Amino acid sequence: MDFSLSSKTQDYLTRLKAFMAEHVYPVEQQIYAETHALNPTGDWTQWQVHPAIEPLKQKAREAGLWNLFLPDADKGQGLSCQDYAPLAEEMGRVLFASEIFNCSAPDTGNMEVLYHFGNQAQQDQWLTPLLNGEIRSVFGMTEPDVASSDATNMAATIDVDGDQLVLNGKKWWSTGLGHPNAKVVIFMGLSNPENDKHNQHSMVIVPLDTPGISIKRMLTAYGDYDAWSGHGEMHFDNVRVPKDNLIMGLGKGFAIAQGRLGPGRIHHCMRAIGMAEKALELAMQRSLSRVAFGKPLLKLGGNGERIAQARMAIDQARLMTLHAAWKIDTVGVKQAMTEISAIKVVVPNMLESVVDMAVQIHGGAGMCGDFPLARMAAGARALRLADGPDEVHMGMVTRLELKKYQDKL
Amino acid sequence: MDFSLSSKTQDYLTRLKAFMAEHVYPVEQQIYAETHALNPTGDWTQWQVHPAIEPLKQKAREAGLWNLFLPDADKGQGLSCQDYAPLAEEMGRVLFASEIFNCSAPDTGNMEVLYHFGNQAQQDQWLTPLLNGEIRSVFGMTEPDVASSDATNMAATIDVDGDQLVLNGKKWWSTGLGHPNAKVVIFMGLSNPENDKHNQHSMVIVPLDTPGISIKRMLTAYGDYDAWSGHGEMHFDNVRVPKDNLIMGLGKGFAIAQGRLGPGRIHHCMRAIGMAEKALELAMQRSLSRVAFGKPLLKLGGNGERIAQARMAIDQARLMTLHAAWKIDTVGVKQAMTEISAIKVVVPNMLESVVDMAVQIHGGAGMCGDFPLARMAAGARALRLADGPDEVHMGMVTRLELKKYQDKL
Amino acid sequence: MDFSLSSKTQDYLTRLKAFMAEHVYPVEQQIYAETHALNPTGDWTQWQVHPAIEPLKQKAREAGLWNLFLPDADKGQGLSCQDYAPLAEEMGRVLFASEIFNCSAPDTGNMEVLYHFGNQAQQDQWLTPLLNGEIRSVFGMTEPDVASSDATNMAATIDVDGDQLVLNGKKWWSTGLGHPNAKVVIFMGLSNPENDKHNQHSMVIVPLDTPGISIKRMLTAYGDYDAWSGHGEMHFDNVRVPKDNLIMGLGKGFAIAQGRLGPGRIHHCMRAIGMAEKALELAMQRSLSRVAFGKPLLKLGGNGERIAQARMAIDQARLMTLHAAWKIDTVGVKQAMTEISAIKVVVPNMLESVVDMAVQIHGGAGMCGDFPLARMAAGARALRLADGPDEVHMGMVTRLELKKYQDKL
Amino acid sequence: MDFSLSSKTQDYLTRLKAFMAEHVYPVEQQIYAETHALNPTGDWTQWQVHPAIEPLKQKAREAGLWNLFLPDADKGQGLSCQDYAPLAEEMGRVLFASEIFNCSAPDTGNMEVLYHFGNQAQQDQWLTPLLNGEIRSVFGMTEPDVASSDATNMAATIDVDGDQLVLNGKKWWSTGLGHPNAKVVIFMGLSNPENDKHNQHSMVIVPLDTPGISIKRMLTAYGDYDAWSGHGEMHFDNVRVPKDNLIMGLGKGFAIAQGRLGPGRIHHCMRAIGMAEKALELAMQRSLSRVAFGKPLLKLGGNGERIAQARMAIDQARLMTLHAAWKIDTVGVKQAMTEISAIKVVVPNMLESVVDMAVQIHGGAGMCGDFPLARMAAGARALRLADGPDEVHMGMVTRLELKKYQDKL
Repeated sequence: MDFSLSSKTQDYLTRLKAFMAEHVYPVEQQIYAETHALNPTGDWTQWQVHPAIEPLKQKAREAGLWNLFLPDADKGQGLSCQDYAPLAEEMGRVLFASEIFNCSAPDTGNMEVLYHFGNQAQQDQWLTPLLNGEIRSVFGMTEPDVASSDATNMAATIDVDGDQLVLNGKKWWSTGLGHPNAKVVIFMGLSNPENDKHNQHSMVIVPLDTPGISIKRMLTAYGDYDAWSGHGEMHFDNVRVPKDNLIMGLGKGFAIAQGRLGPGRIHHCMRAIGMAEKALELAMQRSLSRVAFGKPLLKLGGNGERIAQARMAIDQARLMTLHAAWKIDTVGVKQAMTEISAIKVVVPNMLESVVDMAVQIHGGAGMCGDFPLARMAAGARALRLADGPDEVHMGMVTRLELKKYQDKL
Repeated sequence: MDFSLSSKTQDYLTRLKAFMAEHVYPVEQQIYAETHALNPTGDWTQWQVHPAIEPLKQKAREAGLWNLFLPDADKGQGLSCQDYAPLAEEMGRVLFASEIFNCSAPDTGNMEVLYHFGNQAQQDQWLTPLLNGEIRSVFGMTEPDVASSDATNMAATIDVDGDQLVLNGKKWWSTGLGHPNAKVVIFMGLSNPENDKHNQHSMVIVPLDTPGISIKRMLTAYGDYDAWSGHGEMHFDNVRVPKDNLIMGLGKGFAIAQGRLGPGRIHHCMRAIGMAEKALELAMQRSLSRVAFGKPLLKLGGNGERIAQARMAIDQARLMTLHAAWKIDTVGVKQAMTEISAIKVVVPNMLESVVDMAVQIHGGAGMCGDFPLARMAAGARALRLADGPDEVHMGMVTRLELKKYQDKL
Repeated sequence: MDFSLSSKTQDYLTRLKAFMAEHVYPVEQQIYAETHALNPTGDWTQWQVHPAIEPLKQKAREAGLWNLFLPDADKGQGLSCQDYAPLAEEMGRVLFASEIFNCSAPDTGNMEVLYHFGNQAQQDQWLTPLLNGEIRSVFGMTEPDVASSDATNMAATIDVDGDQLVLNGKKWWSTGLGHPNAKVVIFMGLSNPENDKHNQHSMVIVPLDTPGISIKRMLTAYGDYDAWSGHGEMHFDNVRVPKDNLIMGLGKGFAIAQGRLGPGRIHHCMRAIGMAEKALELAMQRSLSRVAFGKPLLKLGGNGERIAQARMAIDQARLMTLHAAWKIDTVGVKQAMTEISAIKVVVPNMLESVVDMAVQIHGGAGMCGDFPLARMAAGARALRLADGPDEVHMGMVTRLELKKYQDKL
Repeated sequence: MDFSLSSKTQDYLTRLKAFMAEHVYPVEQQIYAETHALNPTGDWTQWQVHPAIEPLKQKAREAGLWNLFLPDADKGQGLSCQDYAPLAEEMGRVLFASEIFNCSAPDTGNMEVLYHFGNQAQQDQWLTPLLNGEIRSVFGMTEPDVASSDATNMAATIDVDGDQLVLNGKKWWSTGLGHPNAKVVIFMGLSNPENDKHNQHSMVIVPLDTPGISIKRMLTAYGDYDAWSGHGEMHFDNVRVPKDNLIMGLGKGFAIAQGRLGPGRIHHCMRAIGMAEKALELAMQRSLSRVAFGKPLLKLGGNGERIAQARMAIDQARLMTLHAAWKIDTVGVKQAMTEISAIKVVVPNMLESVVDMAVQIHGGAGMCGDFPLARMAAGARALRLADGPDEVHMGMVTRLELKKYQDKL
């Protein structure tokens, strides 16, 4: 066993931390505050990316800290899932940092889909500008009218009409839909109801300006629009795209989703771990600097124990996620399903509890916009649902545990 | 023992439920949605009360469902703390319901202060319009620059200058400060630093238009401004009011606060219990109407057990709060401090966990504004800090437990 | 609402506490220690009741503190379920106290069965000596070879053969089977498999010396035999008793069990609450008298908060149990099923967590026989299974919650 | 990063598993049952090791599966802390397995002390027979009359009298004291009260037959004597040993204890993880083979989710422990104190909750001696206190977290 980071990872991590220290942390709080002022309402048509972001992206690209998530050595940096994991953690400490390094969800997942399953034309048209950070993308999977915890419930339709595909249905919680640069959606829908239930759906590339798409609204996630990126609801009403926009083939939707799955989990879990570290750091600073009943808060009642609980929970969650990344790299997603499901349950719950502790230590300041804690809390809560609720992933862990016994019974 | 409601309470409860059923529930969701549209930003100077509210207030007053919280038979309805408790629960089911019956915090607490401790002139000037629902009020206690969990940290100052009091300092989390009708603040500050620590502070009535008061901003509570009421930050810069605005006397701040304490706890705890019942109701409806993996959500995995846990937690919390109310009525606040402290810990935590379960059952719909759940979650979280964090109240319970042993040691 | 005890209850409670203070507490620890010495092994045939018990029973009877559980004014003391509840709590503080007042499980439940459902001859033969404290009894329900959480799984058989009933099967966890005075078992078995599933079983009175009964062993409950009472396994091999020993009639087993259910729950829950109070008391005493790192344990880290959590959990559980008792008294068991099921989940879990806290405060002393805490822990753990596991009772709460919605769907 | 086991570990693990499968598992349940029959009471003078153990030890030694814990290549097997960890896990699955491979606590810790800090004569006299499995040893640290959570409370004394050391005081919870082969105790006591608090204590080797030592009793740990090994209380009354029996030097007690600490934690945590795996395995088997309400238990309510929770908790705890082992191997105990403290909190709590779930699945069978679960539960509970209570280790984690901030404040 060797728990140390590879020298390659170590090098990237050192450079990333230096970049964050020099360019990001100094403007972090300012960008939070100004973003809110720039985007005061839910009217996404008026949303603006904070003006500091584009220059930071340029700097990051010049520093070679760009598309770190993509294992491809030319298009990305040649970093494996486990190599990238600690970098994702570092980015997770600042709410907008991923965008600077062109490592934002759902673009990363979408780029992976296009990279692995897109054809050359699809890659040229969409992967290239995404890799260049020129456009943003969204993913259309969750639907308002069915229980999306069971993905096979998905009811939006894809019909073949000659050389065209005709899309109908509603999608919501499409993260990034409010971003001024959002140009394309990967739409998942029911195309082959005649097949068995994991081969009925397809994925289609749809430019967001295609007629028939209406963006109905941005949704608040626990009160916040998460501007300038947002989470949107969009309706598809006889939206027509060329059949060439189909990814891989009809009925391949779940196969693609499965492939997209593993690394994406690692990414968001590691970002969540970075966020938890940041929350713990804020809690430490606050609990050492504020005094009540004659002592710093850290010394009062069970506060110290809660700090310890946070440290222990974060460290366990990190090891579990790194182990899952290592399994993805070494034996593949299919053999790592227990681990990939487990981190989806463990990490968001850990994050939620660490952030909650930090908020409690901050008192009223923790609930308002003076610290990023309330948004972290909302993010943590959302993560317990996004990409499937806890219960669905626990169900997967149980099923895989059961498999070990079925032969013996 | 008799756990049944008095016939008086039963009568009011029947009438209140009928009023809610006829006038409030039918417009509940519409008012939520329109409120958000009416008040899209944090610019509180533009905030408007939903136009349906004032007519509802008139109807409630005509129906004799007015100032239910006040035990006085003339100014209120002559309902004791335990009598009012089930009514507060019913109001808690709808986020804006208390205002309709002139039972909103912090007005109720402020009215109690004026009723019990205000002189005739103070009552005439401020209690009367508050009881008439003509104006709203705020309470200025929590401060941004000190740990308010220790109330004796309070640093805003009250200086006597001849016939005037001069107020300086910052207050935040003043709930209701953004309300268009907010006209007056009860300000608490340090007036007598030479006294022992529970006799150093005073309470002063301050009209909100007094020169020197600046309302700096409304705060988001977990992303939401809670418009049209809001939680504000205000600064006092040599604010001068006549000495007649002092309540009771110099150094009486904590004595008044103590008196204000008990019934207020009952009120917000019972509202929280009503909110939890509403959340459970939403969870039941959603889990019975949505299907995944071939079954209604209620039948999946541990969902049924979570419903049972919610039912058991709510019922326990209600009994505990009613018992505390009964103790306040029969032996007084001072003899009920364990109970009053305990409900402050138990009820908000119960609410938070019930609402969280309901959100999880709702999936993405639970996180956005389509249901009141996200605001309930924010409210529950805030309640774990408002009026003192959990830890402070647990400390009180521990101290009172300890007292039982001190003689024996 | 009135949370105060009736004057009758208050009188009994005062007398009971005085009796405990004068006669029981002074010998409590000595009886624990000597019991262990008297009954060093699991060989139940050698078990002896501690010699102090029989004289204490006489004293209790003379003091009118006898059969307090039975509402009948002649045979018991005319105390309702809610009247008796606080007395059961007081008894629960000492592991052997119930026996002194002839209020031990399972005798109380068996006496209730005989009182309500037994005929005159059955009452004369068995109820009378039980009420006199001359004999003890056991209940034969749980079976080793089926999942007893589903009581309809019960597989032991009752066959009618002319004037006789022939019993076959295995029963275990028959509490009290090792008691030297145990003379009779109420045996529940499958008599009418042709009926619907709640009318297939019957209850039969079986003297323990009937040929064909073999007591196989006493079981350890978390390492302890609970001598001198014990939990036994007994096998029935063509055991023949007169048909007159049948209670009520064939197929009435579950109907009787249902009637036996409610008050029994109140009793063991209230005893559990008394036990929790005792554990909290021990925790307070230990945490105030032991010093580490320069402070009494109570002042270290989260210990104070844990004391508060215990106090709050006990108080909630007590109110919930008293409320359930009041519902049994006023509207009957059938209308109180949510409450009766809820306390079965809430109280044992509360007890377990309070006792665990107390053990942790005691360190090694808490784990060994120097304090009653380890046995309390075992008792608490067993209560989470006895009379049905938590999960079954949560299922009942869920089902009853669901009923409220079924008409509306 | 590389989470795979070294080929050396893999080889040992394969052989160990084969040995367990061939020689241990087949007799596991029989040995449990017969041990109980052989040692029916707490009279340790009559205790016997099960006769199968000594032959199994011989077989293990011949198979090269002997003293696996000791990194020394000659005296042990040359396995590092991380190499040994998975072997300890395997042994943890069976309650008596460690003894077979001469890897039992507290012998392992005592052998490490003698190996690292004993002089040649001490090693010849005591380490050699311990390494040969000829004798057993105990550790005398915890005391009945002080709060041992603060080790500096230790009050037993060591006085120098010429060439002799004179020992006085009481020790309890000395594990293994009841073992027929127990011959020696490493006694820790206060020798230099004039020093600072971590240099006041010394460790001394004391043959158990030295005059003045009286073994007062064996203690039950949650009702069980853990015969044939046991946990004893012994009193030292002017016990005299040659000064040569001092380990390292006067005042070195804590320095030695610190060195003994790290690997010992890994050992018992990994055994606990093996025990948890066994408990989960039992839970799976039971929940698949028992039926209630028409379904195997696994399919009922939240049972499946609890299985998943157990799997996730075990996997996290294992990774955390392996990581701690790796840090001990690579940077040493002092640099791994957060990890070593954290596993002491995380692993026993995880074990307790997994075993509790397994007991619940087993119902009454889980509480009695028919399965090893009740003893596992007692063992888990004891581990939350043994070697310091949870709270002390959380305190260490908090302190180390705090250190990161002290420079910055």
